[in-house]
Amino acid sequence: MVGGGQLARMTHEAGIPLGIRFRLLSDTPQDSAAQVVSDVVIGDYRDLDTLREFARGCDVITFDHEHVPTEHLRALEADGIPVRPGPDALVHAQDKGVMRAKLDAIGAPCPRHRIVADPADAAAFAAEGGGFPIILKTVRGGYDGKGVWFVRSEDEARDPFLAGVPVLAEEKVDFVRELAANVVRSPHGQAVAYPVVESRQVDGVCDTVIAPAPELPAELAGQAQELALRIARELDVVGHLAVELFETRDGRILVNELAMRPHNSGHWTQDGAVTSQFANHLRAVLDLPLGDPRPRARWTVMANVLGGDYPDMYQAYLHCMARDPQLKIHMYGKDVKPGRKVGHVNTYGDDLDDVLERAAHAAGYLRGTIVE
Amino acid sequence: MVGGGQLARMTHEAGIPLGIRFRLLSDTPQDSAAQVVSDVVIGDYRDLDTLREFARGCDVITFDHEHVPTEHLRALEADGIPVRPGPDALVHAQDKGVMRAKLDAIGAPCPRHRIVADPADAAAFAAEGGGFPIILKTVRGGYDGKGVWFVRSEDEARDPFLAGVPVLAEEKVDFVRELAANVVRSPHGQAVAYPVVESRQVDGVCDTVIAPAPELPAELAGQAQELALRIARELDVVGHLAVELFETRDGRILVNELAMRPHNSGHWTQDGAVTSQFANHLRAVLDLPLGDPRPRARWTVMANVLGGDYPDMYQAYLHCMARDPQLKIHMYGKDVKPGRKVGHVNTYGDDLDDVLERAAHAAGYLRGTIVE
Repeated sequence: MVGGGQLARMTHEAGIPLGIRFRLLSDTPQDSAAQVVSDVVIGDYRDLDTLREFARGCDVITFDHEHVPTEHLRALEADGIPVRPGPDALVHAQDKGVMRAKLDAIGAPCPRHRIVADPADAAAFAAEGGGFPIILKTVRGGYDGKGVWFVRSEDEARDPFLAGVPVLAEEKVDFVRELAANVVRSPHGQAVAYPVVESRQVDGVCDTVIAPAPELPAELAGQAQELALRIARELDVVGHLAVELFETRDGRILVNELAMRPHNSGHWTQDGAVTSQFANHLRAVLDLPLGDPRPRARWTVMANVLGGDYPDMYQAYLHCMARDPQLKIHMYGKDVKPGRKVGHVNTYGDDLDDVLERAAHAAGYLRGTIVE
Repeated sequence: MVGGGQLARMTHEAGIPLGIRFRLLSDTPQDSAAQVVSDVVIGDYRDLDTLREFARGCDVITFDHEHVPTEHLRALEADGIPVRPGPDALVHAQDKGVMRAKLDAIGAPCPRHRIVADPADAAAFAAEGGGFPIILKTVRGGYDGKGVWFVRSEDEARDPFLAGVPVLAEEKVDFVRELAANVVRSPHGQAVAYPVVESRQVDGVCDTVIAPAPELPAELAGQAQELALRIARELDVVGHLAVELFETRDGRILVNELAMRPHNSGHWTQDGAVTSQFANHLRAVLDLPLGDPRPRARWTVMANVLGGDYPDMYQAYLHCMARDPQLKIHMYGKDVKPGRKVGHVNTYGDDLDDVLERAAHAAGYLRGTIVE
């Protein structure tokens, strides 16, 4: 797996029971996954020689992030190393312009959008719809709210163009909430769909995920799952695909973003589904039959733990574990820095209010924003 | 953790989400746990200097097996390193003579037993009860049926004395089945009890575990849990304690063996309990509040996978994963040798016959004894 973040850490964890020999390419030995993996290569994923050396002896290469240059992936494939998801699929998660063009071509519902050339063109795009505000995104390099601007005027439309990367304009969707439809697809086309979840964002960062999305009409849930499965097939995705969606006020779903790797909106599956997204991602990239994606509890809630005031989590563990013996804690081994995702918690049960309260309390306490 | 076997492998797996920095002392880099752990020291646990070097910087030391010499554990404690379970507790899992004497002293029900000096004394022990057959055990060094003899005559009583280790004689108990009562206890005395399970042996090796033990009267289950909790407290155990029990034909329970570490009879907890034995063992030795031991399914079955005809498990995975998408596979990364425990599977559900069949089929197929 290329990339030493928490997704690789949790994928390794899921690979241990499958007896998988897991090799990691990590920037530093301190990276989240590098702390817990035996077979670690330290190096820069942007360097082709490093990638080639890393890939030697691997049965298949997969990814913790979408940042490996497409031409390097093609070079690995030319060397005979299976790359999953492959470069032709992964480019849709790397470049929002390519993604939107492809989704249009297959008729997947998207917010109104087009590439804009400059602030004046962005203003023209706004005028073609209901005017400002609009959303501007650099087509490459963004995540967790970075590379995305909420723009209320032509004046505010300047920053996105400074990076010299093409800029995509999108309508500001009138959504009631964000959903995610997560699916996993294997090379021979088997696919499984997880229940559609609700994803609550705070400051552009995922805060809470509820599985399944409460009060989502069965028809809309089915549409979202079918859409995600269709995107996975049409884009020839192998592995986990997260389709982030808007649920609009008028009862439609629109595709917001795609991610082709285990995803924050699927962390609940570690404790809430028969087979976790991490295990199924591995099974897919190894072309093994996929595991059951169904939920094990009526409700599962995931809450992210952001870095806060606790440099040492031990005292917080004492409180959280004693308060809730059913709490599932997942920490990433990262140094705590304010605002950084350093872990998440999962809770599950029959009573949604209770499950939500327990997750919010634990995440807040671990962050230091709740003190008892 | 001292010892590189599958118990350490699965304990590391359980420690990853807790953000635990896990250091392993392993005989070789090929050992089961050494394959998946980042921080591995290769060395001999029988060498005190190696242990001391390994322990430097650790907050606490715990064990994958019971074979570390007691005097070395005392030396580590004298160095100021917490050893959990401590040497005074662990000796009861190391020496069956000490174990029986202590269980007698606290009034725990045991098979009739005494240390015997030679084959003639063994015959005398048999005559004091109903005659042969009896069981002879060397007090140290046995596991999985090794170091245990089923003896039908004075003539057959010679082998156990050849090792020069004291020999314990025990009555051949008229039992209907074997049970295990697993508990976890922390340094300040908090303890949790898992449901009592039935353990089915084949050729002296655990084959299948059913959680909870079917049709076990609630009163007997309660007695077994109370007994295990009492043993943990009286012996000052820290961490996971497995109390292997006989259920006698006349409705009593008798203590067979003790193990002070995660145990084969608790592997079902990985997929069948809210908190696994591995996570709770870690929480105990780190003096963190313990997790909920309750079951997540009505029935969970664990079946061991012994080494068989498959040197490569990939083809077997294809069959087993396709046949049962809910199957949970746990392989240890060991070279397959006939009769060696190389993994286990867990299944769960509402219908015990179905859950048993799925586990037996998968374990048999992975071993190569079932071919479809």
